[in-house]
Amino acid sequence: MPSVDNSEKTIKVLSVQSHVVSGYVGNRAATFPMQYLGLDVDVINTVQFSNHTQYEGFSGQAFGAQHVLDLFNMVSKNGLHDYDFLLSGYMGTAENVDAVKEICQRLRENNKKLFFVLDTVLGDYGSLYVPEALIGLYKKVLCPLASLVTPNQFEAELLTDRKIKVLQDAVDVINDLHDIGIPNVVVTSAELEDVHDESLGAEVEKQLHLIGSQLVVNCKCSGSDCGDCKNCYTRQMFIISFPFLSGYFTGAGDLFCSLLLARIANILQTKTHDANATKKCGGMGCVGGRGILGEGDLVQACERALATQATIIKATHDYQQSTGVPAPEGLDRSQRKNQMVKGFELRLIPNREYIANPKVIYKARKL
Amino acid sequence: MPSVDNSEKTIKVLSVQSHVVSGYVGNRAATFPMQYLGLDVDVINTVQFSNHTQYEGFSGQAFGAQHVLDLFNMVSKNGLHDYDFLLSGYMGTAENVDAVKEICQRLRENNKKLFFVLDTVLGDYGSLYVPEALIGLYKKVLCPLASLVTPNQFEAELLTDRKIKVLQDAVDVINDLHDIGIPNVVVTSAELEDVHDESLGAEVEKQLHLIGSQLVVNCKCSGSDCGDCKNCYTRQMFIISFPFLSGYFTGAGDLFCSLLLARIANILQTKTHDANATKKCGGMGCVGGRGILGEGDLVQACERALATQATIIKATHDYQQSTGVPAPEGLDRSQRKNQMVKGFELRLIPNREYIANPKVIYKARKL
Repeated sequence: MPSVDNSEKTIKVLSVQSHVVSGYVGNRAATFPMQYLGLDVDVINTVQFSNHTQYEGFSGQAFGAQHVLDLFNMVSKNGLHDYDFLLSGYMGTAENVDAVKEICQRLRENNKKLFFVLDTVLGDYGSLYVPEALIGLYKKVLCPLASLVTPNQFEAELLTDRKIKVLQDAVDVINDLHDIGIPNVVVTSAELEDVHDESLGAEVEKQLHLIGSQLVVNCKCSGSDCGDCKNCYTRQMFIISFPFLSGYFTGAGDLFCSLLLARIANILQTKTHDANATKKCGGMGCVGGRGILGEGDLVQACERALATQATIIKATHDYQQSTGVPAPEGLDRSQRKNQMVKGFELRLIPNREYIANPKVIYKARKL
Repeated sequence: MPSVDNSEKTIKVLSVQSHVVSGYVGNRAATFPMQYLGLDVDVINTVQFSNHTQYEGFSGQAFGAQHVLDLFNMVSKNGLHDYDFLLSGYMGTAENVDAVKEICQRLRENNKKLFFVLDTVLGDYGSLYVPEALIGLYKKVLCPLASLVTPNQFEAELLTDRKIKVLQDAVDVINDLHDIGIPNVVVTSAELEDVHDESLGAEVEKQLHLIGSQLVVNCKCSGSDCGDCKNCYTRQMFIISFPFLSGYFTGAGDLFCSLLLARIANILQTKTHDANATKKCGGMGCVGGRGILGEGDLVQACERALATQATIIKATHDYQQSTGVPAPEGLDRSQRKNQMVKGFELRLIPNREYIANPKVIYKARKL
């Protein structure tokens, strides 16, 4: 019998997202990559639909907040709620926002350091997926609990009432999000008029940019007695530029967020100094317990997650090209036919080896 | 950008089983291993429970057959039902049996060669999980559609009204199941009074045995004109012995069945002669379209699936020993406390590397 790995502690995640029978969005895009990277992922499905809603039809059920809370309550009652991470994605209703808030708060009662990854799924390219009222709820109810938020450009704009056109706009947005009390912010993709990374090569015409920032413990702070935790941290910002690929990639945000969570988890597992960092502060409004990472951790996690993401997007892009079912840019929903939409599904499983072994090509630059 | 794998065709599976938020049974035990081995797995959850039912409590919903069929109908309508394999596990109700029957029949209309893996989840160690009426439904409704069944000893006995005590009993059981028209049969674990494999070593006191059998095309048959397909096939039986490990391993059957499916899929993907084999027969009662494998394929698939399974069971066994929460044999359900039951969960994720790279120690012997 071969020897087996029984290391005492595996990292445990609770992922609250949608489920589709076919295709890769929500939990279906997020669960496998986290498991592949060694996390024990518990899964609450907020809906069970046949497929995502871009197909010509969909069927199934949305389960509602009470079902979600019933599941969580019993998991807790049975003592199975020893989670290190909470991940939430698309919610759709105010009730679900409240349910996730309650889950987060109750998990933090048990584990002060619970790392809550809030994927701020509101919309994309100027159109909302969710009722407008949810924007305010995300800002007021969920963001103040989050350890990390991962808005795309449109979502970052919605959450801060700003527009992102140039790099300084993105920096302002991130500063606003830190000011709400979020220790880690990643704007996953933005178009910036004034940034063009020449190192990507002359053939890359259109570029997208990930802009990230983490709070790090300010060494000048004396620790738990300072009373004003805002002074305890400095902000470390960075940017990663990567080529824009034309095409449609449903679930790309869900995938990226799960990869980022898993990479952060992997880093935390191999380091100990973060635990010390989070102990330093204890004052009112302290974000320490919510997930202060070690210096450079967010950069490293983003580089790795993006490397996997870019490969899977490239595979999906190439597959779309190869199917002979063209999907011109700016498609109206009514123009989206099933055979075409099927090509938008992430080529996740055939490219699973790139989840564990990404080749980091797009590197972060400090801001 | 690294080159990516976009091989035209990935193997597609539809898995219809239960879902639990926490722990590894049903789809939660089956989906990840199949994905890890490269299969595109679509997932219909028949229930969403907080955890399996051996914990002190559970919450959630059973969805019922209409929900299952609604999901399937829309997946089909959207043209997403190009499945190579159907896998069904625990069903619990007559309605669900009928739903799976309908799904199988409709998928076969599109793909004559759909390989239906029927995990005959009825009970274990002498006690039923399901209403007694389901035994007859499995026999009459589902078994005649199956390409492969994977009963444990108790289930094999229920399906054939026989008792398995010695090897000949198991052979009789398998012959009965072939006679119903099932081309591939694996009795996943049986205790046999008259078999003891010395090669496992003197320290292995108690042994379990997997007994498998597949139909292979009889070369003397002239093909589609013979009219009596039963004469077209011979039966190839084998046995694999492995050590019994004391302990409780919930979801072990679900895991094994998914590993076996994935191994068969992997073998079919790299071979072409099977396609020819299944073309040979076309008469009434022909089982060819239901999944005649190439000679030796089932042996190879079982050896590999069992190798992974044995490693994960060993890891779970060792973990149970290490937790300091003893679980004596023959526990009554009322004696099962949450902390103990938690130790019964398969150590699947920490040992995921053994899914792809099992070390085959327990080898098949021909019968």
